[in-house]
Parts: sequence; C-alpha cells; structure tokens
Amino acid sequence: MYSIKALQEIFSESLSDQQFKQSPAELYDPVRYILSYGGKRLRPVFLLAGCDLFGGDIQAALLPAIGIELFHNFTLLHDDIMDQAPLRRGKSTVHQKWDTNIAILSGDTLFALAYQYLLECEREVLPEVMEVFTRTAIEVCEGQQWDMNFENRSDVSIDQYLEMIRLKTAVLFACSLKIGALTGGADDAGARSLYDCGMNLGIAFQLQDDLLDVYSDEDIFGKKTGGDIVANKKTFPYLKALETASSSQHERLISLFQRQTDDDTAKVSEVKEIYSQLNIREHTRDAMNDYYARALQNLESVRVDDQRKGILVSLIHEMKDRTY
Amino acid sequence: MYSIKALQEIFSESLSDQQFKQSPAELYDPVRYILSYGGKRLRPVFLLAGCDLFGGDIQAALLPAIGIELFHNFTLLHDDIMDQAPLRRGKSTVHQKWDTNIAILSGDTLFALAYQYLLECEREVLPEVMEVFTRTAIEVCEGQQWDMNFENRSDVSIDQYLEMIRLKTAVLFACSLKIGALTGGADDAGARSLYDCGMNLGIAFQLQDDLLDVYSDEDIFGKKTGGDIVANKKTFPYLKALETASSSQHERLISLFQRQTDDDTAKVSEVKEIYSQLNIREHTRDAMNDYYARALQNLESVRVDDQRKGILVSLIHEMKDRTY
Repeated sequence: MYSIKALQEIFSESLSDQQFKQSPAELYDPVRYILSYGGKRLRPVFLLAGCDLFGGDIQAALLPAIGIELFHNFTLLHDDIMDQAPLRRGKSTVHQKWDTNIAILSGDTLFALAYQYLLECEREVLPEVMEVFTRTAIEVCEGQQWDMNFENRSDVSIDQYLEMIRLKTAVLFACSLKIGALTGGADDAGARSLYDCGMNLGIAFQLQDDLLDVYSDEDIFGKKTGGDIVANKKTFPYLKALETASSSQHERLISLFQRQTDDDTAKVSEVKEIYSQLNIREHTRDAMNDYYARALQNLESVRVDDQRKGILVSLIHEMKDRTY
Repeated sequence: MYSIKALQEIFSESLSDQQFKQSPAELYDPVRYILSYGGKRLRPVFLLAGCDLFGGDIQAALLPAIGIELFHNFTLLHDDIMDQAPLRRGKSTVHQKWDTNIAILSGDTLFALAYQYLLECEREVLPEVMEVFTRTAIEVCEGQQWDMNFENRSDVSIDQYLEMIRLKTAVLFACSLKIGALTGGADDAGARSLYDCGMNLGIAFQLQDDLLDVYSDEDIFGKKTGGDIVANKKTFPYLKALETASSSQHERLISLFQRQTDDDTAKVSEVKEIYSQLNIREHTRDAMNDYYARALQNLESVRVDDQRKGILVSLIHEMKDRTY
C-alpha cells in the first residue's frame, strides 16, 4: 500500500528524470531551479492516489501529475513576483535570483509546459482533463486576484475568505484528484466525488496552513511563526476573531492589522493573546476538521471496494496530522 | 468570396459578442480593455481562411479563432510589461493603466481563457489542436526570451535573428493556419502545408514590420518612423547593413546603436543614409518577398481545387501590399 512518502518518492523520481530544454538558459534554468525547491508534492501525490483508487496504473498518471506540479510552480513563481517575496523555502525566489522579466516569462513557460505534460493523458479522457484543468487555471487566477484585493479591504467576511481560498488553493486539489480519477477510469459520479473531495481537502489544507502559521514549531514549519500576523494577512483565525471579539478586542485587532510595527514580536504575542481569549485555535481547528470530515465523506460515497480507499483515507489522515 | 476585411468583420462581431466575466474587475476589465485595442486580427482571420480552404464552416472555427486572438493579446500584455512600454496603439498599456501585478495576472488569465476557447473545437481534432497550440505557446516564450537576450548582444547573426522571429512571431501564424486547416477537415499533408505556409508568412510579416518601421508613412503606420533605430533594435535591416557595410560604416552603425542620443532625428537620418548607401530597403524587401513567395508555394502544394485557394491567395497579396 502506498503512503504519502512512497508516492512522493515515485513522483520525485519521475520528475527528476524529465529533461527540460537547456536553451534559452534564462527560460529553462529558472524552471529547473523552482522545481528543485522540492516541497510536499501533495497535488501530484493526490492525482496518483486518485488514479489508483479506480484501479488505474499510476505509471500512466505520472506525466499528468508532473503537469499539475508544473502548474502549481507557475502559480508560486508569479505569486512571488506579485507579493515581492524574497524567499521561498529558504531559497531566493526566481525574480530575486534573476529578475522580474525572467520570472514572468519562465512562469509563462511553466504554464505552457504544464499543458504539454497534461496532454500526455489517455486520449479518451483528454477533453475532460483539458476542461477541468483550464477552468481550474482560470479560477486560480481569480483566487489570487481576490487575495490581493482583500489586502486593502477591512470588510472581508469569512464566507468571502472561504470562497477566495476555494479558488486560490482548493480547486487545484479538486482538479488533481479529478484528473487522477479520470486517468484511473472513473465514471462521472466517481470523478465528481473525487473533485468534491479535493475541494474540501484543499480548504482544510489552507485552514491548517492558517493555523500552523500561528501555532506551529518554527524549526519544523520552516516559516517564521506569526508571519501572517506580521504581514497583516486576513486569514481565517483573524476573521474568526473579528467575528467573535468584544468591541475593545475588535478595535485593537483592526488597529494592530492596519500598520507595520517595529516590534513584530510584541505584535504577534498581543494578537495571539486575543486569539487565546477567543478560543481561535479551537474554532479554526473545528472548521478545518469539518472540511477534512467532508472530504472523507466524499471519498466514502465512491463506489469502489473499501479496500481500495485505504490509500486515500490514510493520505488524508497523514495530511490532517501534519504539524508543518 | 471573403476579403481580409470581410473575415475581420465576421471575427470582430463574434469577439464582441463574447461575455467575459465581470468579477473580479481587476482581472476582467484589463481583458476587455486590451481586446478593445482592436488591431488587424490577422491570426484569427488566417485561421478562418484556413478552415474555409478545406471546405469547413467558418462559424465552427470562430471560437478557436477567438482563442488564438486571446493568446496573441496575452503575449502583447506580458511583452509590454517586460519592455516597459507605456503605449500600444496610442492607448495606455495595461501595466501603465492599472499596475504590473494586475497586468501579470490578467495576462495569465488571458492565456487560460485562450485554452478555454480552443477547447471548443471539434472533439476529433482536439488532440492535434492542443498539441500544436501548446508547442507554439512554448516557442513564443522562447522567441521573446531570445529577443530580450539579443538586446544586450552585439554578435547576433541574421540566421539567429530569423530563428528568433520564427519563434516569437511566425509560429503563431503557422499554428493559426494549421488549426484552421484541422477544423476545416484537412488531412495531415494539408495541415502540414498550411503550417509551413503560416511560418513563411509570419517571417515575411515581421520583415515587413522591420521595413515599415524605417520607411512607412508615420500617419498611416501609427508608430513613429525609425522607432526601432531609436530603440537600438537589432532588426533585419540593421543586421543586413552590418553584414554588407564597409569597416567605417560598420563602426559607425555599432556606435550609433550602442547609446541613447538627445537627437533621435539626426540619428535616424544618419542610419537611414547608411542603409540607403547599402541598398538595405531593397535587400529587406527581397528577403520579405522571398518568404511571401514560399508561403504561396506552400499553398499551391495543397490538394484542393484552385478555386478554393483564391481567398488565401488574395489575403496573402493584401498582406504583402500593406503599407502600415
């Protein structure tokens, strides 16, 4: 039986076997560089598991899985330009190491290369694969735009936030699982259930990220704890806190999230103190668990032997238990 | 029989009937805005003509034709960011009117939307349409990168320049004609001939642009004559001049193209004087005519009634006779 780790290894080996072009170097060096960041490779891993669920051969799903990972890296590359992020996973971002023009264009190339790999799926599922992938790509762009818009707004509701992370993050999990299902030979209902499963999983994943940003162990998570608080990001914990805050707490949170401060440590601990008074950790965890539970329900509804579901069930539990 | 103008009108009407989403406005307003620039719409026009050549219904080719035009506009949008161009067709560029982040992301969206429209082709030709379009997208990125690289190089050969414009410009003409052929029901040989025809046409088109930049009537062309000279662009006329120049002319050209000057008018007229001594206008025109002739030969080789070829032949002649 495959674990996340086993699927990650199969995928990583296949990815490192790919020979991307050498020339022009300004285009393909950044492609190789960003792929060398590593990362959890969760989207391709779920694609492979989705294929296996329906009895498909995961070898035949490897190239589409690479396509999904290339697309994900395209979004990271362009998002990092827009966020002016200097680092990702402790390494220089592409626009920092090269320049913005190279980052724009190598990102565009990654997007096109993603299609090239997805085109390697079986011909009979190609139209559906192309349809869901293209729709997803558009939605991911919309999600990123909402995310940027929310930076300058103080009236974001939790529903709007959930819709934003659905578009920015969750649809790509949904798309990955659906493409896996299609390559594995799923019928319409099965493919739809896996799409829904991925959507709930993706929302849960982002809520978990929000949670871990505030409460994880810095050394393991690899990001500074409280980074979202320092950046005044309107995450689920913040929006939930606003919703349940007393008027003085509300005022204080709004004020803390409106400015840059010289003392980030003091800011983070004051915000965490308010979160603690309002049980934000538990509220966020409840919301996250709710989405994980929905994802498991979606999986339960799929009409294949329960035995076959073991891999995805354990992948979801592994994901839920992550502390980084 | 269709003229360029008739096909342009059919296409423009269809394009203006499209309802792009409204929200998020930061994403879709720039999409509508860049499409409102207008332009010659040559790529979709050739796609429609390619479809008609094989007896296809151009109505069925309209959505893929829109896809090609969306892709072309995506490349303009991102190229304008990279070139820091303030204006296109006399109107503010997207990154100028909004900002760079919006230009990056609405460009990405245009690219994905292009696929959404191309997916509307007939199912039986979908794999081939996706394959040629995706390969073309990658090549266009490569061409843009070579173009940027050439800005900082003084050793660009004419062959390297022709390869750059093949990638940056010509492959999209080739792709458009091939997709037209496929949607029109062409066999492999026919689709290949139209691809080659588009490639030669695209190179001819770019050489003509190079020529018109130096010699056209400013009022009609809509760009300042000599813009490429002012920008020190290494176009065909410049590279041809270097190839045939005496050592003093060579030295002078290199020196003129290495710096910005306060007196662009004097610079342009000095360069044009050297071009004139070297018959650059005639050399460039000969090269252009050669590619137009090859395009017509590719078309001749297609096994359909000569009568059906009339439209494309006249489109090519119209294009060749353009003075702007």
